[in-house]
Amino acid sequence: MSQAQLQVRLLAVTPDALSLIYAAFRQCYSPGYAGDLWPKLLNGELPAQEQAEFVSNIMESGHHSPIEHVGFTFAVEGVSRALTHQLVRHRLASYSQQSQRYVNESGFEYVLPPQIAKIPEARELFETFMEQTAETYARLRELLQEHGRKGAKANEDARFVLPQAAESKIVLTMNCRSLLHFFALRCCERAQWEIRALARKMLAICREQLPVVFETAGARCESLGHCPEGERFTCGRYPRKTTAT
Amino acid sequence: MSQAQLQVRLLAVTPDALSLIYAAFRQCYSPGYAGDLWPKLLNGELPAQEQAEFVSNIMESGHHSPIEHVGFTFAVEGVSRALTHQLVRHRLASYSQQSQRYVNESGFEYVLPPQIAKIPEARELFETFMEQTAETYARLRELLQEHGRKGAKANEDARFVLPQAAESKIVLTMNCRSLLHFFALRCCERAQWEIRALARKMLAICREQLPVVFETAGARCESLGHCPEGERFTCGRYPRKTTAT
Amino acid sequence: MSQAQLQVRLLAVTPDALSLIYAAFRQCYSPGYAGDLWPKLLNGELPAQEQAEFVSNIMESGHHSPIEHVGFTFAVEGVSRALTHQLVRHRLASYSQQSQRYVNESGFEYVLPPQIAKIPEARELFETFMEQTAETYARLRELLQEHGRKGAKANEDARFVLPQAAESKIVLTMNCRSLLHFFALRCCERAQWEIRALARKMLAICREQLPVVFETAGARCESLGHCPEGERFTCGRYPRKTTAT
Amino acid sequence: MSQAQLQVRLLAVTPDALSLIYAAFRQCYSPGYAGDLWPKLLNGELPAQEQAEFVSNIMESGHHSPIEHVGFTFAVEGVSRALTHQLVRHRLASYSQQSQRYVNESGFEYVLPPQIAKIPEARELFETFMEQTAETYARLRELLQEHGRKGAKANEDARFVLPQAAESKIVLTMNCRSLLHFFALRCCERAQWEIRALARKMLAICREQLPVVFETAGARCESLGHCPEGERFTCGRYPRKTTAT
Repeated sequence: MSQAQLQVRLLAVTPDALSLIYAAFRQCYSPGYAGDLWPKLLNGELPAQEQAEFVSNIMESGHHSPIEHVGFTFAVEGVSRALTHQLVRHRLASYSQQSQRYVNESGFEYVLPPQIAKIPEARELFETFMEQTAETYARLRELLQEHGRKGAKANEDARFVLPQAAESKIVLTMNCRSLLHFFALRCCERAQWEIRALARKMLAICREQLPVVFETAGARCESLGHCPEGERFTCGRYPRKTTAT
Repeated sequence: MSQAQLQVRLLAVTPDALSLIYAAFRQCYSPGYAGDLWPKLLNGELPAQEQAEFVSNIMESGHHSPIEHVGFTFAVEGVSRALTHQLVRHRLASYSQQSQRYVNESGFEYVLPPQIAKIPEARELFETFMEQTAETYARLRELLQEHGRKGAKANEDARFVLPQAAESKIVLTMNCRSLLHFFALRCCERAQWEIRALARKMLAICREQLPVVFETAGARCESLGHCPEGERFTCGRYPRKTTAT
Repeated sequence: MSQAQLQVRLLAVTPDALSLIYAAFRQCYSPGYAGDLWPKLLNGELPAQEQAEFVSNIMESGHHSPIEHVGFTFAVEGVSRALTHQLVRHRLASYSQQSQRYVNESGFEYVLPPQIAKIPEARELFETFMEQTAETYARLRELLQEHGRKGAKANEDARFVLPQAAESKIVLTMNCRSLLHFFALRCCERAQWEIRALARKMLAICREQLPVVFETAGARCESLGHCPEGERFTCGRYPRKTTAT
Repeated sequence: MSQAQLQVRLLAVTPDALSLIYAAFRQCYSPGYAGDLWPKLLNGELPAQEQAEFVSNIMESGHHSPIEHVGFTFAVEGVSRALTHQLVRHRLASYSQQSQRYVNESGFEYVLPPQIAKIPEARELFETFMEQTAETYARLRELLQEHGRKGAKANEDARFVLPQAAESKIVLTMNCRSLLHFFALRCCERAQWEIRALARKMLAICREQLPVVFETAGARCESLGHCPEGERFTCGRYPRKTTAT
């Protein structure tokens, strides 16, 4: 039983990502063949800086589909099931999540919300409860096994007592367009703190790998210059758009 | 605190579903316009029986895309968060799920796994634990509120102690093609018991509404005549395909 | 051989669309069950006007997913293959298109671009060419059939001479969220004239059926209050956003 | 004016593809973190052969989602608009296609169907017609420009006379799961000859790059051992499944 820490590791990104996006954009607008252009993009005949400027200009005009050709795969651990349940609602993505049926969760780690950690009484209550939960889970598994439910069959029923805080691990892939949308929603102050922390870590990695696509990514207010979240929800960092505008 | 019961209510199905599928199939293969054919399909000029036979024959040939035009919307309650986390992995669907941020879960209902219910000691342990959980949740909410975290802010952190068993409610829409895939996976004996129960209730409703599409739907073995699940996983009801076949 | 006219016919829309969206929104934010709320929405206990106001307010806050539960199915004829090739790039939709393999296209109709129709010499050239094309198509089909290529096999090769102008018919389904995106892109002055005309006809139908969702739909400039299309592309109707804003 | 030849060039594939799939599968079934496993997969601590066997066994059991993490990007030229219109119906993919609005198609190349090429009279008719088409296109563009329609505005209307045979170029990305589905449909003898030729070239590349996923890929009959295409459509290479099986 211990507190889980959010970890994000980049496992893969489509190689030659900038050139790939450049080649795809050019395929839309020029008579030549991307397959012929390709070696020139890799051997430096067309400098990366020029490729980046071209991509940046076209993206600004609202043409985003070519960035879909580049995907990022992350391994994530130290996140709660509360987070993963939100995460997998993003449908333009691929997920491989640790199964609570196939994995024995005795001694599970848990995510401790920072606001609970700050209040000593709450923190103690929370941590004690996690231990009771682990004991209850272990005892239920035992009882199920004694009654003939083995392996995954015992896990899948005992898991009903596991908390939303229980740590999960997940491998996920999103393409750049889907990532921009994910960051727009989940880097926003309205997003729940845990998925916001994940989104920001992912964004930092994306920015380092492919600045031309991600340098202005993040909450929608940052590219719009105003808050689109509605009066009840705005965090106040940017003004709301008035109907007069 | 009480045990939740699975309920499924059909909220909507695309009207004139059989005729819509028929019209879409005919649009692919004939020179006429589906818009002109449409009134004849509704006024009985072409009997429903003939429409159904045509659809049935074409579907058998592996052409399934026209059934996408028909969608079903269900309201579901009495399911666990364990179930909804699996459910929303089906990406060709739309979901509106009860939020544990915006809804106070004090006194939440819970799903009791039948195998636990059968073992008196396990059942008592489970039920007592649910009560302790509710108390812990309520106390954490209180403490968070006392420290200035109001409404959704208190709920979203206190929820970390809520169990996978906590009942959820969800409205979902899938088109017929996505439903066939959902039933193929989730009516299988390999599927977890709770989502299998949901899938079977949904299938019964679909069959009643649109038999031509759903009469042979269900686990893949039922249409294949053999089990495609691999040696480790087969339930034994159908033979596995040998390579010699 | 004659000129095709764009026709759009609404074949189906999810029944009780406003109430369905209302029920889905409420399911997210309230403790009750959408299945229990449902009869009250249909029997007038909660007036449609109140349902519409609630939906309108929530949509303004940027929460759009519940409108996915409602789908529209249209039959379309009198459009070119140039248009349908663009149309089917919208991936969050279902299509059933008239096949040029299974349908004999001798005597095909064609779409005449209005700018060509305005120039007498161009129009005559275009119309004469369409007749030559039909003759070439018919002769190729004949030759293929004489050499043993029957039915679809003859059509599928003869079709290679058919023009982009050749008329097509298609049945399509999109949900409301996908429709809003489609209208945002395709009602814009930047869109090609033919798909813009289709988008506007579809939008007029959607607005009549479900004003709460579609009253402010259309090109992005109309809801943003500025043109997001980039300096090279803007039509000038709305100012472009400057970085200072 | 000349005949186009199909070319397929692999631009990118997700790096360390086998290890990525292996890591994702393991994340589902084991307590460890894929991020910790990752260096061991790359440094040879776990031989590629063992990774491949594990992946192969799990895929056989019907669990395919982890192969979605790996994507392939191809540049394709020498294909007709007839082909690309079919291709882009595959919605789980990303496309960047040469635009007939932004590219002047005077002197376009064309795809000559092999069955037409075999019949001297048909071939001559076809080739002559392509030249007439190019002249008509060029003249229409000229007339449109003389009447004030410049650049893309002239192209987009003149293109209405371009044939389905007109050559196109496209960059496309699909993940492995989507590719398996694409090959299942398009390597089948029922598929139109041109898209079948493209599918087979793509499959050969995929097989070379990632044999563990693609060695048994192709038309559905090859993995099923029977033809699922229905009596009217079967090519006869494999027996149809009888209901008795």
